[in-house]
Amino acid sequence: MSIQFGPEYVRAIAPYQGGKPIAEVAREFNLDEAKIIKLASNENPLGMPESAKLAMQAAVADIGRYPDSNGFELKAAITAKYDVPAEWITLGNGSNDILELATHAFVQPGQAAMYSEYSFLVYALATQAVGARAIVVSAKDFGHDLPAMLAAVTDDTRLIFIANPNNPTGTFIPAAELEAFLQAVPPQIVVVLDEAYNEYLPPECQYESIAWVRQYPNLLVSRTMSKAYGLAGLRIGFGIAQPAITDLLNRIRQPFNVNSLAQAAAVAALNDKPFLQKSAEVNAAGYLQLTAAFDALKLIYVPSFGNFVMVKVGEDDGAGARVNLALLKQGIIVRPVGNYGLPQWLRITIGLPHENAAFIAALKSLLG
Amino acid sequence: MSIQFGPEYVRAIAPYQGGKPIAEVAREFNLDEAKIIKLASNENPLGMPESAKLAMQAAVADIGRYPDSNGFELKAAITAKYDVPAEWITLGNGSNDILELATHAFVQPGQAAMYSEYSFLVYALATQAVGARAIVVSAKDFGHDLPAMLAAVTDDTRLIFIANPNNPTGTFIPAAELEAFLQAVPPQIVVVLDEAYNEYLPPECQYESIAWVRQYPNLLVSRTMSKAYGLAGLRIGFGIAQPAITDLLNRIRQPFNVNSLAQAAAVAALNDKPFLQKSAEVNAAGYLQLTAAFDALKLIYVPSFGNFVMVKVGEDDGAGARVNLALLKQGIIVRPVGNYGLPQWLRITIGLPHENAAFIAALKSLLG
Repeated sequence: MSIQFGPEYVRAIAPYQGGKPIAEVAREFNLDEAKIIKLASNENPLGMPESAKLAMQAAVADIGRYPDSNGFELKAAITAKYDVPAEWITLGNGSNDILELATHAFVQPGQAAMYSEYSFLVYALATQAVGARAIVVSAKDFGHDLPAMLAAVTDDTRLIFIANPNNPTGTFIPAAELEAFLQAVPPQIVVVLDEAYNEYLPPECQYESIAWVRQYPNLLVSRTMSKAYGLAGLRIGFGIAQPAITDLLNRIRQPFNVNSLAQAAAVAALNDKPFLQKSAEVNAAGYLQLTAAFDALKLIYVPSFGNFVMVKVGEDDGAGARVNLALLKQGIIVRPVGNYGLPQWLRITIGLPHENAAFIAALKSLLG
Repeated sequence: MSIQFGPEYVRAIAPYQGGKPIAEVAREFNLDEAKIIKLASNENPLGMPESAKLAMQAAVADIGRYPDSNGFELKAAITAKYDVPAEWITLGNGSNDILELATHAFVQPGQAAMYSEYSFLVYALATQAVGARAIVVSAKDFGHDLPAMLAAVTDDTRLIFIANPNNPTGTFIPAAELEAFLQAVPPQIVVVLDEAYNEYLPPECQYESIAWVRQYPNLLVSRTMSKAYGLAGLRIGFGIAQPAITDLLNRIRQPFNVNSLAQAAAVAALNDKPFLQKSAEVNAAGYLQLTAAFDALKLIYVPSFGNFVMVKVGEDDGAGARVNLALLKQGIIVRPVGNYGLPQWLRITIGLPHENAAFIAALKSLLG
């Protein structure tokens, strides 16, 4: 018998299935890469901002050097934009890194981390990776049921993940409800508020979560630059929390977790208001385009506050996988969410007008 | 009293102190960045290879997309170069990522990980981060004492780190001794063979560790592209092991841990034999230049097989810090190793001829 390495809780993890890369779909289905449309990973269809590209080019000369472990310039830019001290900032190799640092820093094997049903899969993975117990609270209308989450808190709960807006469903928790939750959560429990899609919120929904960090020593706000900022390929995100939390995250952070080009590009992108504005506009228009088509096709979708929409493509539990495969064969990559327990649904990232149109046409031909 | 978050073993970690970045030294000592010489982080003084720069530029167009989570192209390049299946490869955000994945995958809180005195600090950090017990075996002649390590194995030892060549001392374990060790280690213990400096070995010292992976199911060979390949700023390393190990590392790996530009640059750099050859030549010449100066100054140094030399700069325990500070004031950054328990020594990265000369001149003026 061969030796089994590692603890049972690590062997039990099912690896994350990301959106299929374009090159992989091209190989698998024998398609022309240039004709493939990817609406699968909630990426920004505008790509990266020009400002970030320029900043990156200037940084290429130093690639032989290690990155700045302390992220001096990038923290200064975050400080300037969000009015928080550098000591409150943790830089991550994407916000995935922040989410994982949080479980490693705050949850021991056997203790519990909590998150909502239909919430980002990385919460489950990060919880499993430290051998912790997951408390998964049933969703309400595809989103977080905050009163139920409060009621489910146990003595050994150490961390609660909240995604706002939520991925993959797109639901949103209004500020007042969220703050009431923060007030009610026992103060020794770290609340990770994952705001990966924050920049897509319409003005009337925006709220000052980073100001809450001053008030709640147990709050860790997580942001990514992979979505609205268009830097997914570079890997950069950050966490904001008071020093009691930030200090621990930085102790277990890999010293050079954020590469030099990501740091340089992020400084530029953070300050590129026109790009962010345009991203939000493209997204709002694309949302109308997609949802109008879903309405016309009489398809149910979950109203979304992110850069994606979850749509129900059939009544049987094979529907999501079946439609997904048919779309793949036509060179359109979207995201099945059967692994979230939503096998009748697909999550569609909002693309450029012609990308949305191609997806809609394909969907019509399959379901119409 | 304020609430303390996280387990005691996390709060006890002292964060890694990397080599000071040039910009930071310039700020701290009010120096001109362009005149600063950095011989502190075992970086390649040639910078990144041109081939990698070109490959990276071609990949910039896709930065808005997530990286390939499975690293198809890079794994194919590693497969071609080292003749190992893709299923035996784990890509890391630098080899630091591989080292840390190993403790997370194989060591639970309370179990033990082993490493040598005077060995890479990340072994200690990665061990502490999972709440494991460290078995630190006394060094012999500044290097690994393999028989003593074997004798120190306990029932709960799950992982042993071996650095060959060793950082920060530069010592080398000949292939025969290493293989005898692998044969003697209990097969349920994962041996992480960290070969960050492998590419600098002279031909007569080279050995086929990756071939050993076929023979030893408990062997994980770790390589970095931050040293001889000149890609420190991009963050890329990899691990090679049989599937029983690799599969677990990939379960806990962050899905997008390696950025797109690092993947593209690494493919090019792996195949850039002339650059690797030149790096080794520059290093060999610089080693002679530095050690000749140490001999002339009657300074003791540890013969090194890496791209750095550890030199004793005084007899008192303040010597390393004192000489380091004096060098910093002259704009020369090297690495004090007091935190390794070697307060009389400095570790000097081998630089370009004029960089080595500037360091030698400064050292002479301080000690001569």
